[in-house]
Amino acid sequence: MANSRFEYVKQFERENFLLPQTHIVIRVDGKGFHKFSSHYEFEKPNDIRALNVMNRAALAIVKQFPDIQMAYGDSDEYLFLLRRTCDLFERREMKLVSTFALFMLVYYVMEWNLEFADKPIVMERLPTFDARAVVYPNAQTVRDYFSWRQVDCHINNLYNTSFWSLIEKCGMTGQEAENFLLGTVSSDKNEILFSKCGINYNNEPEIFKKGTVIVREYQELQPTTDLSERQKQRVSKARKKAQVKTLHVDIIKDTFWEERPWLLE
Amino acid sequence: MANSRFEYVKQFERENFLLPQTHIVIRVDGKGFHKFSSHYEFEKPNDIRALNVMNRAALAIVKQFPDIQMAYGDSDEYLFLLRRTCDLFERREMKLVSTFALFMLVYYVMEWNLEFADKPIVMERLPTFDARAVVYPNAQTVRDYFSWRQVDCHINNLYNTSFWSLIEKCGMTGQEAENFLLGTVSSDKNEILFSKCGINYNNEPEIFKKGTVIVREYQELQPTTDLSERQKQRVSKARKKAQVKTLHVDIIKDTFWEERPWLLE
Amino acid sequence: MANSRFEYVKQFERENFLLPQTHIVIRVDGKGFHKFSSHYEFEKPNDIRALNVMNRAALAIVKQFPDIQMAYGDSDEYLFLLRRTCDLFERREMKLVSTFALFMLVYYVMEWNLEFADKPIVMERLPTFDARAVVYPNAQTVRDYFSWRQVDCHINNLYNTSFWSLIEKCGMTGQEAENFLLGTVSSDKNEILFSKCGINYNNEPEIFKKGTVIVREYQELQPTTDLSERQKQRVSKARKKAQVKTLHVDIIKDTFWEERPWLLE
Amino acid sequence: MANSRFEYVKQFERENFLLPQTHIVIRVDGKGFHKFSSHYEFEKPNDIRALNVMNRAALAIVKQFPDIQMAYGDSDEYLFLLRRTCDLFERREMKLVSTFALFMLVYYVMEWNLEFADKPIVMERLPTFDARAVVYPNAQTVRDYFSWRQVDCHINNLYNTSFWSLIEKCGMTGQEAENFLLGTVSSDKNEILFSKCGINYNNEPEIFKKGTVIVREYQELQPTTDLSERQKQRVSKARKKAQVKTLHVDIIKDTFWEERPWLLE
Repeated sequence: MANSRFEYVKQFERENFLLPQTHIVIRVDGKGFHKFSSHYEFEKPNDIRALNVMNRAALAIVKQFPDIQMAYGDSDEYLFLLRRTCDLFERREMKLVSTFALFMLVYYVMEWNLEFADKPIVMERLPTFDARAVVYPNAQTVRDYFSWRQVDCHINNLYNTSFWSLIEKCGMTGQEAENFLLGTVSSDKNEILFSKCGINYNNEPEIFKKGTVIVREYQELQPTTDLSERQKQRVSKARKKAQVKTLHVDIIKDTFWEERPWLLE
Repeated sequence: MANSRFEYVKQFERENFLLPQTHIVIRVDGKGFHKFSSHYEFEKPNDIRALNVMNRAALAIVKQFPDIQMAYGDSDEYLFLLRRTCDLFERREMKLVSTFALFMLVYYVMEWNLEFADKPIVMERLPTFDARAVVYPNAQTVRDYFSWRQVDCHINNLYNTSFWSLIEKCGMTGQEAENFLLGTVSSDKNEILFSKCGINYNNEPEIFKKGTVIVREYQELQPTTDLSERQKQRVSKARKKAQVKTLHVDIIKDTFWEERPWLLE
Repeated sequence: MANSRFEYVKQFERENFLLPQTHIVIRVDGKGFHKFSSHYEFEKPNDIRALNVMNRAALAIVKQFPDIQMAYGDSDEYLFLLRRTCDLFERREMKLVSTFALFMLVYYVMEWNLEFADKPIVMERLPTFDARAVVYPNAQTVRDYFSWRQVDCHINNLYNTSFWSLIEKCGMTGQEAENFLLGTVSSDKNEILFSKCGINYNNEPEIFKKGTVIVREYQELQPTTDLSERQKQRVSKARKKAQVKTLHVDIIKDTFWEERPWLLE
Repeated sequence: MANSRFEYVKQFERENFLLPQTHIVIRVDGKGFHKFSSHYEFEKPNDIRALNVMNRAALAIVKQFPDIQMAYGDSDEYLFLLRRTCDLFERREMKLVSTFALFMLVYYVMEWNLEFADKPIVMERLPTFDARAVVYPNAQTVRDYFSWRQVDCHINNLYNTSFWSLIEKCGMTGQEAENFLLGTVSSDKNEILFSKCGINYNNEPEIFKKGTVIVREYQELQPTTDLSERQKQRVSKARKKAQVKTLHVDIIKDTFWEERPWLLE
């Protein structure tokens, strides 16, 4: 039977090889996490155990793929920064995207069931994720992308902290709290938290205010160009062995990046 | 804090909206299934229970997304055919791809653990999948794509059946069986199976020879154009209610398609 | 000197091969034709000689590329429909686009200088064009694209005819004519033309009302699949020899297409 | 007449907006220049007047689009480097490509007819061009692309000079010269030129050995970020006024680029 007669259909496949020498960021987002968090009764405004689950899942992914330089997450979203010269799956967009969505789910469920052995995830109420890949041509645009997400984390957390404090400390309804916060800027919310609820926002846990940074730490900058085969193996080994740290720090200012020049090599 | 300063980074995102009015085929492939099947000790050449797990996982996906008209699977691969006018996720390639890879994994694990309660899947030995989306502009190219896969199923199964029969019935080693089959065509293999192993290939189970077809069966052709809102709802309801059947039949010849004109409407 | 060290830069090239078996429409649009037509003093609302230049330029393109089945033009825009199975430049989008823009310019200038020997085009006042390629998966979408452009031709021409008639026959200023036509529908404009200017729009030249259709006419439908090499050559020869006609007819209704089944084969 | 019924066809259009903040290189190549140069009887191995025509055409393009930082050309090919932050045609690939192909033709013909008033270009024997756009994410990759082309220019010119010298000075036939040069490396060709033909390749004109560089020269580095509207206008004015120079120099070594930091800002 001649299979060749039908093989022409392969010509219809389209593959997007992400532009070489650009920084690939893969962003994984929870889908329907509002419903998911209701069902599993997350604490408000932040459920520290659920956050830990997310962070450990991301950590497992970082450890699995040495091409990941760092990751940043908050709430139900995570960004993974791949090395500029990374060649994972030949930089095929669809492979990268489906793999990251899939592993996030796998590790999330695994870590959840360890953390919440009393209420394990049931198939009918699974968390799901989707992923996308974006390429950034230079250090500044990568940093601005991460800054954008950390600012967003701050804005959301300040709002949520204020909203839930007004409900829990001042006995407002959700609608009342929403109206009360309408039109307020950051300094207003800080003031409201302090005067109405006795909360100094600055003293809130860093994990809530800053989100979570997972970073591959090297002792020294790794060379990336003009390597012999033996050097390549040594660098690759170093990458796999590199310590992976979880932090809750500012990634908008220069310090974080200046201390880790390898991130944006 | 002005988030707008960083928001420009969204401009770097690229979205591929699959060409309207084309038939979308999403192909999901197992990754590393050779290792996976070794670890969980699949029967050779076909493990009917593992095949059933795969088929039930695909069935769950078909039921979940009424835009799927039919699916075809063999071994660790499955194709899903979406309606030509389907607008699932606005036809965004990355969303489609990451969602199908993810649901295949989820349902596979769920069905596996029901079927093989004695050897449930452990996190360290997960099956994984990747997915891709291909668009076909017309009925002929869609049919040729499915034909291509069914021919491939036939070729693989005939080879594997011959190979394992020579080992099990004639006491050959793997290497001997491989050498014996080298250069043989289909008719040779049929003859070998019959004379050497006493097997009439025609009597082998259809599920092995033809693979598995999952199809949404309607009583009548659904209109697809110039519908009023009320009509659209009625069609959508019909689609959700349509019986979903699992078959092991020829999809290369015309009969299958002629009996189901709605598939390629 | 090792050139190979630099050759990696070729990897950054991206090529878009237009989806096979779809109908390619290449649309060429004049750029800055308002200024161009002012400079060369086109007659208003339609300059028949300038239209003829455009149509002859398009005709030259149709004759040069036998893969073009038909073309449709109006004002400073032209659409070219390529055969569904056309393989011109391997369907590379950039080659198609740059070639069509370029030949439109070349032939336009050549035909202009023949028609307007008294006011040949000067380099400082060149017409320019840009081109884009769009693929349509089936006959209906192709027809709707052409219908869209012919409706547009009608709407523009009715407006322009009314506008310039009010100025020339009723002595209005441009501003007065514009205000007068504000909010009118087609039937209003027909009525205004008739009562105010004594013009029966139905009697206007078809070239203005319908635009221009250039079509490759065959005696019989050409087979397109499963051809031997000899048959292919015969079909290709027939295509080159096919008579090319210029018409000013309705392409929205079925008749035009039913009489020429080869167009959307 | 409702045009809206057909307007959906616009959804099939696909636009590629080239990735922001990358260096766009537009490469224009002559098509069928072998035939063209035979017809117009170019001198061999290099026709200095034809080269001048090409260079002046490119110069006209550089002057017309202030977003072009530099251009490099040899034989019938030219590269144009756009500013990293350039927003010409909103970075739409098809517009960029069709515009550059078209202007190259226009200016080439214009300059040709000035240079070769005795043998002006006839429509039947037009030069044509195609264009493509490639984006490079950083300074190194841009430089390597230009280096690649200049090395290619050197290799071609050394070969062509040797080939034609063997024919003209030593009376070889084309076939003999080709065989003679088979398998030779650069140093061999230098030696052959010197001993066989009395030519010191180093003394050949720089325009042949190095190709042609067209560069926008500024007095000082132009700022590109965080500009007020007034500053932007000033920069834009400076760009238009910047002197445009034509050079025949090495662009592989660092000097050229270090002296012009604005090129890869």
